[in-house]
Amino acid sequence: MNRANDAKLLGALQQALGDQLVLTGGRIPAKAMSDRSRTGHHLPMIYIRPRSVQDVSSALRICNAHRSSVVVQGGMTGLAGGANPECEDVVIAMDLFAGVEEIDSNAATMTVRAGTILEDAQKAAEDSGFLLPIDLGARGSCQIGGNLATNAGGVRVINHGMTRDNVLGLEAVLADGTVISSLNRMQKNNTGYDLKQLFIGSEGTLGIITRAVLKLKSLPACRATALCGLRSYEDVLLLLRNAGKLMGLSAFELMWGAFFRFSSKAEEFRAFETEYPFLIIIEQSGEAVNLEEFLATMFEEGLIADALIAKSEKEREKFWKVREGLSLGTLPKLIEYDVSLPIGSLDLYAQEVTTALAAEFPSIHVSVFGHIADSNIHLCVSAGQVDAAEKHRINTIVYDGVRNHRGSISAEHGIGLLKREYLSYSRNPEELNLMRRLKKTLDPHGILNPERIICIAPTDRSGCSNGHAHPQR
Amino acid sequence: MNRANDAKLLGALQQALGDQLVLTGGRIPAKAMSDRSRTGHHLPMIYIRPRSVQDVSSALRICNAHRSSVVVQGGMTGLAGGANPECEDVVIAMDLFAGVEEIDSNAATMTVRAGTILEDAQKAAEDSGFLLPIDLGARGSCQIGGNLATNAGGVRVINHGMTRDNVLGLEAVLADGTVISSLNRMQKNNTGYDLKQLFIGSEGTLGIITRAVLKLKSLPACRATALCGLRSYEDVLLLLRNAGKLMGLSAFELMWGAFFRFSSKAEEFRAFETEYPFLIIIEQSGEAVNLEEFLATMFEEGLIADALIAKSEKEREKFWKVREGLSLGTLPKLIEYDVSLPIGSLDLYAQEVTTALAAEFPSIHVSVFGHIADSNIHLCVSAGQVDAAEKHRINTIVYDGVRNHRGSISAEHGIGLLKREYLSYSRNPEELNLMRRLKKTLDPHGILNPERIICIAPTDRSGCSNGHAHPQR
Repeated sequence: MNRANDAKLLGALQQALGDQLVLTGGRIPAKAMSDRSRTGHHLPMIYIRPRSVQDVSSALRICNAHRSSVVVQGGMTGLAGGANPECEDVVIAMDLFAGVEEIDSNAATMTVRAGTILEDAQKAAEDSGFLLPIDLGARGSCQIGGNLATNAGGVRVINHGMTRDNVLGLEAVLADGTVISSLNRMQKNNTGYDLKQLFIGSEGTLGIITRAVLKLKSLPACRATALCGLRSYEDVLLLLRNAGKLMGLSAFELMWGAFFRFSSKAEEFRAFETEYPFLIIIEQSGEAVNLEEFLATMFEEGLIADALIAKSEKEREKFWKVREGLSLGTLPKLIEYDVSLPIGSLDLYAQEVTTALAAEFPSIHVSVFGHIADSNIHLCVSAGQVDAAEKHRINTIVYDGVRNHRGSISAEHGIGLLKREYLSYSRNPEELNLMRRLKKTLDPHGILNPERIICIAPTDRSGCSNGHAHPQR
Repeated sequence: MNRANDAKLLGALQQALGDQLVLTGGRIPAKAMSDRSRTGHHLPMIYIRPRSVQDVSSALRICNAHRSSVVVQGGMTGLAGGANPECEDVVIAMDLFAGVEEIDSNAATMTVRAGTILEDAQKAAEDSGFLLPIDLGARGSCQIGGNLATNAGGVRVINHGMTRDNVLGLEAVLADGTVISSLNRMQKNNTGYDLKQLFIGSEGTLGIITRAVLKLKSLPACRATALCGLRSYEDVLLLLRNAGKLMGLSAFELMWGAFFRFSSKAEEFRAFETEYPFLIIIEQSGEAVNLEEFLATMFEEGLIADALIAKSEKEREKFWKVREGLSLGTLPKLIEYDVSLPIGSLDLYAQEVTTALAAEFPSIHVSVFGHIADSNIHLCVSAGQVDAAEKHRINTIVYDGVRNHRGSISAEHGIGLLKREYLSYSRNPEELNLMRRLKKTLDPHGILNPERIICIAPTDRSGCSNGHAHPQR
């Protein structure tokens, strides 16, 4: 790579897509620098805003021919650094290729473009009398394409599964510009390899997702939400087992006491007179609800110490606001982990990690909460102005515990750049090798989101000082 | 390939696995010849019965080194010819590698070996208080490995999804003997590529599945089943839309009148005084049922003409026996199709195909029934002693209709050998090309279930008269 090649690349892209869609220098928006992890520090060399599948295909074909590394950007709400560019990268930002193309009420499907904001797609579904089951905190700014590329989880996994489980068809563009259009609309289709699975959750390393056919569900007629205080983790597990029989259980979110204290104080919300070590938001949706009755029984059986049923949508939102914990964002250098462990070990793990972190970083803040029914917790850590070595040490403590309990270092957020070093904690050498072979097959020159998830081979790509990337190495 | 090479192959396999597990000639069981499609006519050259993952790995490593084609066999209940060997093939039959290894009650998971009969796994789950959601008519003889390799559907897809949707972890052996052990037990795991998806539904062409971690569900406390007679397809669709709001709807199976007449007569079952053009089995499972109440409302609204609620398990079984239609097996040269089409077009398609077939084959029998809620119907056709050209003509009539309605030529059964010619009716050239690239990556010499689903390149492999296979071509 050299300047002459860069100029040729820019010229070819401008010729194919037009000046308006191919930005450089000061025309590149600052948001292109980093996702929500705030670990990205560079603007890309070129910033492309495709308006069609054909634009994406042309851009990739040209970048592939020039061996130029490409980074895909959606709503920039990721937490794994996956969308953060280096100075030599071409960014393909999907926001202009947005909109719901079709809602098929007979088949209960939605065809949607990758750049569509999740909340817009949810609203379109509701306007047609349906529920789009994919939902997460970043709904107002994340894009469907990013949800698909990272196989996003969120708060409805308990009854609707991950993003992957809600996809019928997918269209993606390969590194060489080939459009793989698998926009299947059938609920069942066993005609050969299920190619869409390659692109879902592979974080843009195997292709750029352009469109999808999503499953829609019935809109629930009613909903009930409660906040419960519990005395022990054993009670949490017993309550969950009982709640499993509740028709239409749609959320079961656990907050450890320390996090609840922090977040409820920030939100100026006072739930109970007593402080409990475990707080649970339980939600039921469907044709009919019987949550109050259920909680009364659980109270009689001694599993619940106290409970508050939301009397209004406003109160419900308050519960969820505490759970979402946006106030954590005020803590310095917040690191957000999302890990899965066997459900029986989650509290033990939370205790072990908190103790181990506090031993080395006495003033550290550790908040724990999450989708307990899915065995998935979020761990939010702030140790003040830590340096790189200290941050690495924190990572290691958190992930060592996951490995010891045979868990997953990423339940939802993905690997991106930030967790790549720890991938082997959750995947074995044979798996990693097969991933490399797949990457090599679909993206022989390694131009697509290079070095996300896995390194094909060691490179010296570590920022601007090293000059241009060598994605093919 | 030649006789000297065959002898070396046999010697190497016997040395690695022992004489007892490596059978030839008269020791090979006759069932190895064909799956339930009855289209296989040859015994393989060698028949291996591995007792461990290591046995499977050794066998594949040796076959790969000798470039010998391998065909995997489970319960031989497939309908696409995918397990039918040629004379030069090595068969790997999984029945000895059977058994449930573990049920984790906390996590609600089961670890099971590929050779396990589905019904045995279901019983093991029930003994531990759980439901294994995978279920299909062949439960008594099909094997979990085959269910996974074909992404089996069945009668519980409506509320539990396909086999794919019930898998957390998977272990498979690649063509070169590499064991990919992805026995994940977490409900959510976004650590890199979801490799298990490659092996599920790829019909043994990318690797041999050896073990899996499956999701278990709560055993429903009660169940209600009814048989309903309906006057029009419009009423069927309206009833389905209403039934969608019924909590715990666990089956909604449609039988067209002609099939119901045939099958109920064979089963000596008389349901209603009147003959209806559409018969539906509707089933509800859960903590509580209100099916009778629901059907009364539907009757009042005129959607249901008549209904029979099963008063005993015996009566319920009778309904299902009629639906399973085993008596169709008495018809000469039965061909069973399973296709998906947009739900609104299913009746029109059934009429069009029946008319088109009857026009060319006046005495033809056509039965139609299926999983209407999943847009999937089974079409069973018998035209007597047809020759190959006539059979081909029948296939073409059936699949032309699917293509016209933009459906799938296989919703459940897979492509195998029998539907390969029509795969392009449901998948486009870019998809087929990507499938070929994946096959080439995972099985470079093309030894695994060669020519199932897709041909890598034209071959003359068409039976014993052509001598040995050349899987690598």
